[in-house]
Amino acid sequence: MENSSAVKPVVGIIMGSQSDWSTMGEAAALLKQLEIPFETKIVSAHRTPKLLYSYAEEAESRGIQIIIAGAGGAAHLPGMTAAMTHLPVLGVPVQSKALSGQDSLLSIVQMPAGIPVMTLAIGVAGAKNAALSAASILSLNDTGVCERLKAFRAQQTETVLNTELPEA
Amino acid sequence: MENSSAVKPVVGIIMGSQSDWSTMGEAAALLKQLEIPFETKIVSAHRTPKLLYSYAEEAESRGIQIIIAGAGGAAHLPGMTAAMTHLPVLGVPVQSKALSGQDSLLSIVQMPAGIPVMTLAIGVAGAKNAALSAASILSLNDTGVCERLKAFRAQQTETVLNTELPEA
Amino acid sequence: MENSSAVKPVVGIIMGSQSDWSTMGEAAALLKQLEIPFETKIVSAHRTPKLLYSYAEEAESRGIQIIIAGAGGAAHLPGMTAAMTHLPVLGVPVQSKALSGQDSLLSIVQMPAGIPVMTLAIGVAGAKNAALSAASILSLNDTGVCERLKAFRAQQTETVLNTELPEA
Amino acid sequence: MENSSAVKPVVGIIMGSQSDWSTMGEAAALLKQLEIPFETKIVSAHRTPKLLYSYAEEAESRGIQIIIAGAGGAAHLPGMTAAMTHLPVLGVPVQSKALSGQDSLLSIVQMPAGIPVMTLAIGVAGAKNAALSAASILSLNDTGVCERLKAFRAQQTETVLNTELPEA
Amino acid sequence: MENSSAVKPVVGIIMGSQSDWSTMGEAAALLKQLEIPFETKIVSAHRTPKLLYSYAEEAESRGIQIIIAGAGGAAHLPGMTAAMTHLPVLGVPVQSKALSGQDSLLSIVQMPAGIPVMTLAIGVAGAKNAALSAASILSLNDTGVCERLKAFRAQQTETVLNTELPEA
Amino acid sequence: MENSSAVKPVVGIIMGSQSDWSTMGEAAALLKQLEIPFETKIVSAHRTPKLLYSYAEEAESRGIQIIIAGAGGAAHLPGMTAAMTHLPVLGVPVQSKALSGQDSLLSIVQMPAGIPVMTLAIGVAGAKNAALSAASILSLNDTGVCERLKAFRAQQTETVLNTELPEA
Amino acid sequence: MENSSAVKPVVGIIMGSQSDWSTMGEAAALLKQLEIPFETKIVSAHRTPKLLYSYAEEAESRGIQIIIAGAGGAAHLPGMTAAMTHLPVLGVPVQSKALSGQDSLLSIVQMPAGIPVMTLAIGVAGAKNAALSAASILSLNDTGVCERLKAFRAQQTETVLNTELPEA
Amino acid sequence: MENSSAVKPVVGIIMGSQSDWSTMGEAAALLKQLEIPFETKIVSAHRTPKLLYSYAEEAESRGIQIIIAGAGGAAHLPGMTAAMTHLPVLGVPVQSKALSGQDSLLSIVQMPAGIPVMTLAIGVAGAKNAALSAASILSLNDTGVCERLKAFRAQQTETVLNTELPEA
Repeated sequence: MENSSAVKPVVGIIMGSQSDWSTMGEAAALLKQLEIPFETKIVSAHRTPKLLYSYAEEAESRGIQIIIAGAGGAAHLPGMTAAMTHLPVLGVPVQSKALSGQDSLLSIVQMPAGIPVMTLAIGVAGAKNAALSAASILSLNDTGVCERLKAFRAQQTETVLNTELPEA
Repeated sequence: MENSSAVKPVVGIIMGSQSDWSTMGEAAALLKQLEIPFETKIVSAHRTPKLLYSYAEEAESRGIQIIIAGAGGAAHLPGMTAAMTHLPVLGVPVQSKALSGQDSLLSIVQMPAGIPVMTLAIGVAGAKNAALSAASILSLNDTGVCERLKAFRAQQTETVLNTELPEA
Repeated sequence: MENSSAVKPVVGIIMGSQSDWSTMGEAAALLKQLEIPFETKIVSAHRTPKLLYSYAEEAESRGIQIIIAGAGGAAHLPGMTAAMTHLPVLGVPVQSKALSGQDSLLSIVQMPAGIPVMTLAIGVAGAKNAALSAASILSLNDTGVCERLKAFRAQQTETVLNTELPEA
Repeated sequence: MENSSAVKPVVGIIMGSQSDWSTMGEAAALLKQLEIPFETKIVSAHRTPKLLYSYAEEAESRGIQIIIAGAGGAAHLPGMTAAMTHLPVLGVPVQSKALSGQDSLLSIVQMPAGIPVMTLAIGVAGAKNAALSAASILSLNDTGVCERLKAFRAQQTETVLNTELPEA
Repeated sequence: MENSSAVKPVVGIIMGSQSDWSTMGEAAALLKQLEIPFETKIVSAHRTPKLLYSYAEEAESRGIQIIIAGAGGAAHLPGMTAAMTHLPVLGVPVQSKALSGQDSLLSIVQMPAGIPVMTLAIGVAGAKNAALSAASILSLNDTGVCERLKAFRAQQTETVLNTELPEA
Repeated sequence: MENSSAVKPVVGIIMGSQSDWSTMGEAAALLKQLEIPFETKIVSAHRTPKLLYSYAEEAESRGIQIIIAGAGGAAHLPGMTAAMTHLPVLGVPVQSKALSGQDSLLSIVQMPAGIPVMTLAIGVAGAKNAALSAASILSLNDTGVCERLKAFRAQQTETVLNTELPEA
Repeated sequence: MENSSAVKPVVGIIMGSQSDWSTMGEAAALLKQLEIPFETKIVSAHRTPKLLYSYAEEAESRGIQIIIAGAGGAAHLPGMTAAMTHLPVLGVPVQSKALSGQDSLLSIVQMPAGIPVMTLAIGVAGAKNAALSAASILSLNDTGVCERLKAFRAQQTETVLNTELPEA
Repeated sequence: MENSSAVKPVVGIIMGSQSDWSTMGEAAALLKQLEIPFETKIVSAHRTPKLLYSYAEEAESRGIQIIIAGAGGAAHLPGMTAAMTHLPVLGVPVQSKALSGQDSLLSIVQMPAGIPVMTLAIGVAGAKNAALSAASILSLNDTGVCERLKAFRAQQTETVLNTELPEA
């Protein structure tokens, strides 16, 4: 399990398999850039259900405040994590092979009343936005994160404003 | 938990909520008709995850041979049950309100390699066919079930053959 | 604008039109039950874009910590709100007439990298889960909310465990 | 901002990001061919919402008569532009990665009653047709554009009539 | 053929069958409210293809400036009308029985490069927005229509601002 | 099996179950109107596969020239009939409960190269059009049918031309 | 226009653009193999609507018995051809870029009652099956075609029976 | 027909064409690994319907206990096999070209009440899971298979637990 620094992680990024890293690694990279301590771990709802249970149950006591869970296909990881903890769970639908993530999206977002998963877009955009969502939540009580988030957003606005289109 | 007779149940029918009964009750009725002992129970993947774990883990030792799991929306019950047992798990996608069971179907059938859920049609047809699938599996080693299954199928063929259409 | 109590609201519930109230009112009711102060307001991205801008821009300074935005069809309210504030924005896709909320869902969840909307399920389940998500976020720094959220979840687990199915 | 000639632009082409240029550049090229003065600009609904507001609000006074807006995914640019101006807004759904533009299309076309976006096909065909639609609208009061549009259409008919298929 | 007044109609509203009137009548009603002269007519692409040809070909010479075409299912009326005239054609996908207008929408919006149909939302919202789009186009050269359109939009903004939500 | 007259039937209408009659009966009624002798029969691909085989294999020798097959859901009747005969097979996707006939349509139309099913629209429109398609095929060698088909089409054109819309 | 031999063509293959040839050429090749005389021609519903009208209207008098029409996207060619002739029209949905032919399929198959298009599968399989459908229709009155069709099908059955799978 | 060993096969793997082998071969490989005797054979529902009938009818008497059937597009092989035998039939939707297996999935899973096909995921994951499902069913009465299945699952859990993610 990676721990981005000596500081105790406050965000846990979990994913169903190593192949999800090309998507979920973008969430990790953005948290790093925002100086939010995080950990990463493979937790498979289907192949390691007991690890899923213990991870979700113990997260709060280990200091984790937010869990980002990415999975594809019949994606049960985010919802089952949410079932085991009252911590905020952010779900990232990983783009699947046959159905391009439509299955992942519906499996994650269509949770029944009672157990929410806060769902982001399919794929890399969703992974990045999960990191920004975590930053947004942490900003409510961490002025450092809040300032870095505001700076990040100001920077990305600036970038758009400075981009020139080629001539037709 | 209903136990259809004094005989020890060999099929467990579980579902995410009471509202699934109008669908899943059809599976129960058909097992009854085929004289296959079964039990029924509400097990919610999201609201009672620990019950799901213990139910799935203990099923085999209690004599359950096949589990029929019905759920709607982000339907995680069949897949998580399959993650906890090597018993055959039959999944029934319950028709959901907004998306008519398309979410239920994809959440159940699109399992990753390694943990299968054998999935039937959306709704009542799927529930009935889960019962018939269970009968088909049990028939491999139970000549009584096999004969009743064959009779059931012969009967339904007979019914079609005897149905008259009205005049145009 | 309703203010659920004398206490300053920390959650703002906005929606595109009065017809969304049958969905979004469920978020309000659940926040009330969890004793989380909130306000409700019609803000239409398309018919009152300036109100949307001022609402989103001023929310933080008015003490709002989380915005729940519900809309249907080409649902732009959650995303445009998120564009104007770094506060956490929870999106609820309201079930639309022709496409049953598939348009609402995609319009809300498929945000580009940089501006996240944390999206819940289509319809009433999503509205309730937006309230629970808000509670989950606030729980990180409010032990009162945290206890009430845990009690709510324990209660709903209890309810499932005590529900009996009819006989087949 | 490109201004295709010394003549004051009457069509404004805006798009959410530089990556949309491979699609939207086709609209620009076709307007150029039809000698309709236009300007092009990146305006991101989500990353530069204030620019979107000012652009849409000031377009009419700057002499813009028609706005062509292209965006992908949760595409809010066309609809929010339409919310800020009564000028005709033509929407082009850019083909998105995971969902091939189905999200873009629904986010643009499913506008609620009151604020229309006139929507074209997904991708390059839509961009070209937005230019032709602008020409068609301008033709109502500009005989020069009308003649060039008629000539363009006569030419494309001619091209089809002169195309030979290979032998089977 | 209805002619809303003694004034020569500038908008032609056509539709595939009488059953489309419950949708397309809303476009007519809104044009009436905006004092834009229009005519209405059943023109079926499939059952009266010759009428479609003559209607589209002669529209311009009869003084029609904009054609609003509504159809459902394999909706060919808007596209074939656009093939026969360079006038702006606005397409309204009528909600179909089995596929809720998804077939109508794709049949209308996915036109190939060269012949555009400016497409609105499925159903009544689309019909109303076709009328508003026509008003928007006509506003470019008719200050009376422009003022009435602005007043209409100001009024609808006002209505939203004055709507109160019930208490939770 | 209904035989519409003393004349030997040339069209066979088959369907998977009695519940398909409300759809397929429309094909029968239209054939009757066009004075094309036909028979109707329930043939279930799944419940009476042997009947399906014998029906399809013997159809030609019994004088049947065209088979119209209607079915819903995983609709295998048209394709399996086509697999057993070289006679033209017309497929009608019956509207299904959960998926509104999308499953029926894809199950019928997406036949692999080698064995065609000529597919019509979902539901009643498809059933009627199957009858008209049969008439169109028979017209190639039956001037009586050809004249009645032309008269039918002229009549339906006339009906559209004579329909008046209400006033707006 | 290609005429496969000195014999007068009985099948007309038309398509919306040259790019459809990679699909529709497979229909031509199969008709050639079955020794059915045919012609091929580009007829664009949208860019050459008058040619479409004259082609469809004159086909019968020129000896054409069956028309195969292929088109992609908002595919209006098959339906509009069917609107202009009572000859059997076979529609082939060409695979489109963004939506993989889902738009083509719905635009072709969902014809309203009264004007049928007999629709085949998306893409090359559909083109081949259109040729086989034409052969099947012609077989009703042409024993030569009938024998060649039966031989073709016997051959393809033989091929399957003789194919060996590799070892696992 | 491959017979994996001298032992009489208990699982029959059939598929519609040789091109399905890249998918279905994965089922064969996994059965081999689990030491479950199997056979493989091309059986095309559409091109060899009589072989399908005889294969399905005779399977039981030849000692086959479970049939795994894979097919793509309008996939009728699994359902028609199930129609001819009461043995458990496992269906694998092969990923199709235009629709990515959505047609295959619906054609297989949406079976009507009475004749079940137990359906797995689209593509390779489904093929592997069909093999594991067969193992799971056979485990009910074969302790050797049961132990190997448990070992396989323990091994795959172990693999996940030992996988390390790269650093962000």
